Amino acid sequence: MLNIILAESSLELIPEQLRSHPSVTSYCKKFKKTSSTTLLDNSWHFGAMKGLDNEIKRGRPDIIHLTLLSLCTTPAFYENKIKVFVHTINDEVLSFNNEARLPKSYHRFQGLIEKLFLTQKIETDDEILMELHSSSLSEIISKIRPTKIIGLTTKGKQTTLDKLIQQIPDNSCIIIGGFQKGHFNQDTEKIINESFSINDSSLEAHLVASRFVYEYEKTIFI
Amino acid sequence: MLNIILAESSLELIPEQLRSHPSVTSYCKKFKKTSSTTLLDNSWHFGAMKGLDNEIKRGRPDIIHLTLLSLCTTPAFYENKIKVFVHTINDEVLSFNNEARLPKSYHRFQGLIEKLFLTQKIETDDEILMELHSSSLSEIISKIRPTKIIGLTTKGKQTTLDKLIQQIPDNSCIIIGGFQKGHFNQDTEKIINESFSINDSSLEAHLVASRFVYEYEKTIFI
Repeated sequence: MLNIILAESSLELIPEQLRSHPSVTSYCKKFKKTSSTTLLDNSWHFGAMKGLDNEIKRGRPDIIHLTLLSLCTTPAFYENKIKVFVHTINDEVLSFNNEARLPKSYHRFQGLIEKLFLTQKIETDDEILMELHSSSLSEIISKIRPTKIIGLTTKGKQTTLDKLIQQIPDNSCIIIGGFQKGHFNQDTEKIINESFSINDSSLEAHLVASRFVYEYEKTIFI
Repeated sequence: MLNIILAESSLELIPEQLRSHPSVTSYCKKFKKTSSTTLLDNSWHFGAMKGLDNEIKRGRPDIIHLTLLSLCTTPAFYENKIKVFVHTINDEVLSFNNEARLPKSYHRFQGLIEKLFLTQKIETDDEILMELHSSSLSEIISKIRPTKIIGLTTKGKQTTLDKLIQQIPDNSCIIIGGFQKGHFNQDTEKIINESFSINDSSLEAHLVASRFVYEYEKTIFI
């Protein structure tokens, strides 16, 4: 079993200081939404986000949707061989029951995650499917207690995924950046035991995620 | 170089006979859209789609978006090692210039594809980025003139992707179903030279696409 964390992910509700910006108010009026319970989305709220702290790691729920689908529609996820977490740029952690099936339709995903931010959990009669907690990356790592913490970043040691997968001990934690561009911050870098780069050029998070899980499946399913 | 075709894809504008259905008219009113130039989307137009011919292969633009991103954000696509086509359930073919960068945000993708259905092409000053033609699968195959036509389906011969990729000649055409469930129809089956199944259980189109391209890249990039 491996743990996969999307770290510093660009997923959050619209921050208070942006809620009265025209690009936010017109969006909320058009879609009959409330700004305090709506996901920040660069593709709609670009005007409001200009100059926002750490802008490059904010407001890309589409990247998180895509990457979560790359992880959570795999045989490894269905068979409980990977645990998936999203750590956000604001130090919240979303965790996913392996029985959870994420909507492929973006607007349904958006509604679900907005509900999760409001209610802290999504549950059926029998079980909790998704949970959200305030938690730094180091706090979630303390709970998981992984054997090893591996970061995937272009700054890491050059390797190939099939070689890398051979040297990852069971119950390790793999950290992938849940953002569009840039690198892990210092807090994340400190937590990582070893970093690897699996491609000459930078790959998008969803590609890293799907390729990683595929190579991992080769080692666990015969 | 390989050609990848998503076949019988669930991508189309809202058909005429559904345009006056309440689930369509209320959607169009809410989003200020015109039904004749709007993509059919099961997640909004479910009520209208009940009983529609071939319902299982209709109205899933989210699946096509996701699968196209799995193909068109890869090093193989950026370096012209794969050509990507979407053949739709209504016998239209969308082709993508390898310079095209598809939006990850669904609403931008939707707008782009709706424009493509209207204008038949998306272009910059210098080049055509996307084109749409009326074309059956066999007609596009006649144009491509591939060495071999390979279908990926659970009905095919059991293999693994890394073994399969070794036996695919250059300029072959790989056919992946661009729909949620079910199998290729007879017309598609007739066109395919050989079929393979790359997993014990059925995999979603975006996973098949991303795993296939990844294995292919291993054989072309050293």
